[in-house]
Amino acid sequence: MTRQIAELRERLAELDDLRLTAGLLNWDQQTMMPTRGGPRRADTLATLERISHARFVSAETGRLLAAADAELGGEDPDSDDVRLVALVQRRWDKARRVPTELAAELAKAASVGQEAWIAARRDQDFDAFAPYLETNVELARRYAECFEDFDCAYDALLDDYEPQMSSARVARLFDELKRALVPLIAQLAQRDLDSSVLHGNFPVQTQRQLVSEVLKMMGFDAAAWRLDDAVHPFASSFGATDVRITTRWDESYLSVGLFGAMHECGHGLYEAGIPPALQRLPLGHGESLGMHESQSRLWENMVGRGRSFSGVLAPRIAALFDGALDADTLFRAVNRVSPSFIRVEADEATYGLHIILRFELEQELIAGTLAVRDVPEAWNSRVRDYLGLEVANPADGALQDVHWSAGLIGYFPTYALGNMIAGQLWQQVHLDLPDIEQQIAAGDLSGLRGWLLENVHRHGSKFRTDELLERVIGGSIEVGPFVSYLQQKLSDVYGVALA
Amino acid sequence: MTRQIAELRERLAELDDLRLTAGLLNWDQQTMMPTRGGPRRADTLATLERISHARFVSAETGRLLAAADAELGGEDPDSDDVRLVALVQRRWDKARRVPTELAAELAKAASVGQEAWIAARRDQDFDAFAPYLETNVELARRYAECFEDFDCAYDALLDDYEPQMSSARVARLFDELKRALVPLIAQLAQRDLDSSVLHGNFPVQTQRQLVSEVLKMMGFDAAAWRLDDAVHPFASSFGATDVRITTRWDESYLSVGLFGAMHECGHGLYEAGIPPALQRLPLGHGESLGMHESQSRLWENMVGRGRSFSGVLAPRIAALFDGALDADTLFRAVNRVSPSFIRVEADEATYGLHIILRFELEQELIAGTLAVRDVPEAWNSRVRDYLGLEVANPADGALQDVHWSAGLIGYFPTYALGNMIAGQLWQQVHLDLPDIEQQIAAGDLSGLRGWLLENVHRHGSKFRTDELLERVIGGSIEVGPFVSYLQQKLSDVYGVALA
Repeated sequence: MTRQIAELRERLAELDDLRLTAGLLNWDQQTMMPTRGGPRRADTLATLERISHARFVSAETGRLLAAADAELGGEDPDSDDVRLVALVQRRWDKARRVPTELAAELAKAASVGQEAWIAARRDQDFDAFAPYLETNVELARRYAECFEDFDCAYDALLDDYEPQMSSARVARLFDELKRALVPLIAQLAQRDLDSSVLHGNFPVQTQRQLVSEVLKMMGFDAAAWRLDDAVHPFASSFGATDVRITTRWDESYLSVGLFGAMHECGHGLYEAGIPPALQRLPLGHGESLGMHESQSRLWENMVGRGRSFSGVLAPRIAALFDGALDADTLFRAVNRVSPSFIRVEADEATYGLHIILRFELEQELIAGTLAVRDVPEAWNSRVRDYLGLEVANPADGALQDVHWSAGLIGYFPTYALGNMIAGQLWQQVHLDLPDIEQQIAAGDLSGLRGWLLENVHRHGSKFRTDELLERVIGGSIEVGPFVSYLQQKLSDVYGVALA
Repeated sequence: MTRQIAELRERLAELDDLRLTAGLLNWDQQTMMPTRGGPRRADTLATLERISHARFVSAETGRLLAAADAELGGEDPDSDDVRLVALVQRRWDKARRVPTELAAELAKAASVGQEAWIAARRDQDFDAFAPYLETNVELARRYAECFEDFDCAYDALLDDYEPQMSSARVARLFDELKRALVPLIAQLAQRDLDSSVLHGNFPVQTQRQLVSEVLKMMGFDAAAWRLDDAVHPFASSFGATDVRITTRWDESYLSVGLFGAMHECGHGLYEAGIPPALQRLPLGHGESLGMHESQSRLWENMVGRGRSFSGVLAPRIAALFDGALDADTLFRAVNRVSPSFIRVEADEATYGLHIILRFELEQELIAGTLAVRDVPEAWNSRVRDYLGLEVANPADGALQDVHWSAGLIGYFPTYALGNMIAGQLWQQVHLDLPDIEQQIAAGDLSGLRGWLLENVHRHGSKFRTDELLERVIGGSIEVGPFVSYLQQKLSDVYGVALA
């Protein structure tokens, strides 16, 4: 390694330490921190961001980048160092347009907002949350104004979660998705399906046992992972050997804890699978959230709600909760299509509509065509249009998600992009591993994990989503494979032909 | 507030944020972190220390200190700002002699050492721990070599835990203590006393209930505090409204969890009692560990093992564990004097000997007259001399304490100083609040807490130990009140005259 690259890497390693530290403070805030710790935590997160941002955008980082770039002239364009310099250069160009004080304000408002959201959600009081959301929208707009080279303000935000994605492209993909989903949902709305096995009395202690068995099959290793409770499930990691996932529990509905945990474990496997050579560097994290969500959604839905794994789950559920349960009954129950209020608990067909709704609303918030005080009405009206439901209280509506409270505006589209990518990967893994369903049916998830490790995780953030997809499946993001997967599955579930 | 002071305060607030952040990373390492997270955690703690140390010792901090000092010319010498500048000036003068890389190395070795210690203690393997202790001793010596104005290397270390204390003064105090303790212990060695009520089968879940009730009486508030499990109990805080204490549990011995928790809660009350005006500044923490330990030892022993509180504890223990227990039986049992291996579980009379042993050994380690590989032999031989016991395994000997693994060399004396100060405060509180024992006997600890808040906690680290004692009791650290307290108590316990 040359001297300039080594120096750049050392500087980036320290910045990565600061990034993980802020991540741990955030994890702690959501899982461990006593309520009254909130204000000091927000100040501290602002300080970390102020220090970290100022160090990153400094002229010295720019100098090291230029020197490293010059040194790497003849190197393999796919080598770690070339990719590192390209990634960091792009981020540096973007970050240095943002004043350090604004970066610190964003960090502080995200921390303050989350505490306000928890209280407002508990009290069913959107008005109490509105001033915090106003702050976050205002800060997001100020952040977007720092840039000139995006088509619109929203694109500057989206780019932080899905690099080099545009809202125009997302809108085209979402239109195609909607055209496929709406008739599918309508066709199934006429047919009822029994999902009563998921509802009843499921003591949390026993659910923990079930989840612990499932996570272990997926690759959760107690020496390097934690599972905790959180108001809104999320995954966090302090490097590949300290992965922290969370879930929440509903004693009357089995899906919440189980599939929430599988979803977050999918995220965790991505971080746990990043090789040592990329650790403690910006390359050592899943960069595209669309790609990240493809992992969580694949494990949650394609594995967790798949027919093969239903055969693994059903006997364990029956044994743990003292009931009879066969695989087909479980398979049908976990795939019942039925419009519902809560995104994270939605079935795979209606899920996309939840995302489209949020994508539309947050674009309007950023464009200034929707005021924060009008969010509940706009939300409820769109839930009526898309899902045919009447929102009765804000915890089932505009207060259900943590994202906006934490300043994560522009994040939501990545969930639906994740479904699409998951559909593409799922198709490919069946080509590459013809006996994958038999493996899963036998409770052996190592083949799938190995395939994802080899094709996705081990690259960290070396490649953009489109580049990585080109390597793995020979194409870019498409709606088709996800829709085909869903039609096929729901045909099996409902015993009807769907197209 | 003037401009320079405001700027200095802002800089110090950010440094305090970094300090609390490192504290949280350490808390997390000891309570939550998966085992394999250790190496990355150590790197991260080194980074935080590197950034924090460099910012603190910078010329800019020096310039702000000088400017602030000039501005404060005519101010009350006891005002927050004058005290703040004096405290920070002293720390700055000390810290800037330490190379930033050495500071970072110390932070890293402390984190690495703790993981090694946990494994070595579990495996009863001192040799596995020895290389880490050698590193820590070597680093401590290099750290001490940065200074010229201490009488010996050990004093430079001691000064970090008990500012402006010298080992010569500690040795004089300890000699006096030993002269009082040894005959006391000898006199009681002949007399047996029944402590069987503390031994038996105490399910951890029920112990948690007991401890939760006791901590609530002390002032533990779930909105601002946490209690967790740790291999070695400790207290930590993220400001006054996020106080975290830990304990450990022994199902066969009731004292471990209960008195460990009361001890740490005593520390926590100190941090929780620091007023908002001193928060987010170096003044906003108990600075002298002797003063800090006086709080923990006072709550653990003078309250927790006192006759008045035994009357509160006994019926709760009886009710929770379905047994009969009267206050006098409990009072005698928790005060049984009997040489034992583990410092934190030692009775109040033999406790001081555990400290003197450590104080002697660590001075020799730093002076270079004792090699790390010879520590177990030296330890065991001194346990034989002072306590008349044969150490059979290192977890009961040189591997029992976390301190040396975490680089905390020079810390131990503050425990015995804490006992002495606690004795002095305890005497004074009885003069100031004549009905304090009746209050405690009624389970009302608010009078004592209020007195400590008013006389100790609210000052943060504005005053050195001697200054604060001068204000509260009109004198400096003395052995006498602690010995008198102990003689009086043990006379009651054993029903004999002790002098």
